[in-house]
Amino acid sequence: MMGPAEEVSPLTLNRLSFYLRSLRHLQEQGIKRVSSQELAQRYHLSATQIRKDLAQFGEFGIRGVGYEVRHLRERLRHLLGLERTQNLVIVGVGRLGTALAAYPGFNSDGFRVVGLVDSDPAKIDRRIGGLRVRPTAELADVVRDGNAIMGVLTVPTAAAQASYDALAAAGVRAVLNFAPTQLRTTRGVRVKTVDLRIGLEELGFFLARAT
Amino acid sequence: MMGPAEEVSPLTLNRLSFYLRSLRHLQEQGIKRVSSQELAQRYHLSATQIRKDLAQFGEFGIRGVGYEVRHLRERLRHLLGLERTQNLVIVGVGRLGTALAAYPGFNSDGFRVVGLVDSDPAKIDRRIGGLRVRPTAELADVVRDGNAIMGVLTVPTAAAQASYDALAAAGVRAVLNFAPTQLRTTRGVRVKTVDLRIGLEELGFFLARAT
Repeated sequence: MMGPAEEVSPLTLNRLSFYLRSLRHLQEQGIKRVSSQELAQRYHLSATQIRKDLAQFGEFGIRGVGYEVRHLRERLRHLLGLERTQNLVIVGVGRLGTALAAYPGFNSDGFRVVGLVDSDPAKIDRRIGGLRVRPTAELADVVRDGNAIMGVLTVPTAAAQASYDALAAAGVRAVLNFAPTQLRTTRGVRVKTVDLRIGLEELGFFLARAT
Repeated sequence: MMGPAEEVSPLTLNRLSFYLRSLRHLQEQGIKRVSSQELAQRYHLSATQIRKDLAQFGEFGIRGVGYEVRHLRERLRHLLGLERTQNLVIVGVGRLGTALAAYPGFNSDGFRVVGLVDSDPAKIDRRIGGLRVRPTAELADVVRDGNAIMGVLTVPTAAAQASYDALAAAGVRAVLNFAPTQLRTTRGVRVKTVDLRIGLEELGFFLARAT
């Protein structure tokens, strides 16, 4: 059985996302059942970890048979809220915001970019991936018109807090933040900060140790 | 004392990166010493986890005094290989590659983008952030000329394996991969795959559960 959402760690959730990708891959290959051992071997995971993570959500493989791929995939999509599409508004259409507006993962299977805003007058009315860039002053309208539930922050660090506050005031419930800064959060508006550099530092650690 | 690099998990390394950011922030504020409790409170971390992570690398705070900020920051920079600059080559200068070429975190404190290649003839000789885009066929030259040790893969999924193989053949030692696919790796050329969508799925889990 699942406890309250707050008890689930981001690390567990990130593993669920990875299991989901693996299950889609298996389903595309026509595979109907998979054991935790097979899943672990194919995708370089830990069988014990898989069983523990899934049991936390009431999913238990059958001994000698494993998990039913289609069922488990649907269950994970349900857990991650991917059954209905969640609409996103991107605040800041510099290079990164422009890249994300057209990013396949932000426009498929549960997510869709429905609005773009920027504070630079030179960018207003530009078209990116079928959407027209609107002024930041119109953010509340953009969120309402697009029925957006999440914001994506791709503004300079100095503008990040004000942009978060504006998204919160406009009624979004979650913000994916690419600015390398810690935001003061409004109750009920969760933030996930993504640091694109962290993967480089992880690789750097291993290189520093390699002979 | 530190064990072999292979025993350190990516999760631990990502926490070291976060501690490093926190220590820089403290140092900028003129703070000279910090306890694990203070660090934990200020940056929403776990004091026990901090002590455990740092002890793994031979760093122990002094009871009642804590850690010396400048020393610990230098030590973490050393561990993450940030003391010398690691040069990067970006393969694929679509929207995301273009964004990363100019991304501050890829061009500061230990990292620098020194080369850009693309297979699209229309993009060759374009200038992005002071660098000229060169043909993928010249990748080995670009890596050698720039003394690059890491590659960044921002090509379409279908081109990812061939681009990884070309980077490995050109002599890079690590690859940061943004293509949503699992690469067959060459011995000695580590891969870190970054999935920009995973943060959205994490937020989606909590939204699906919110009332």
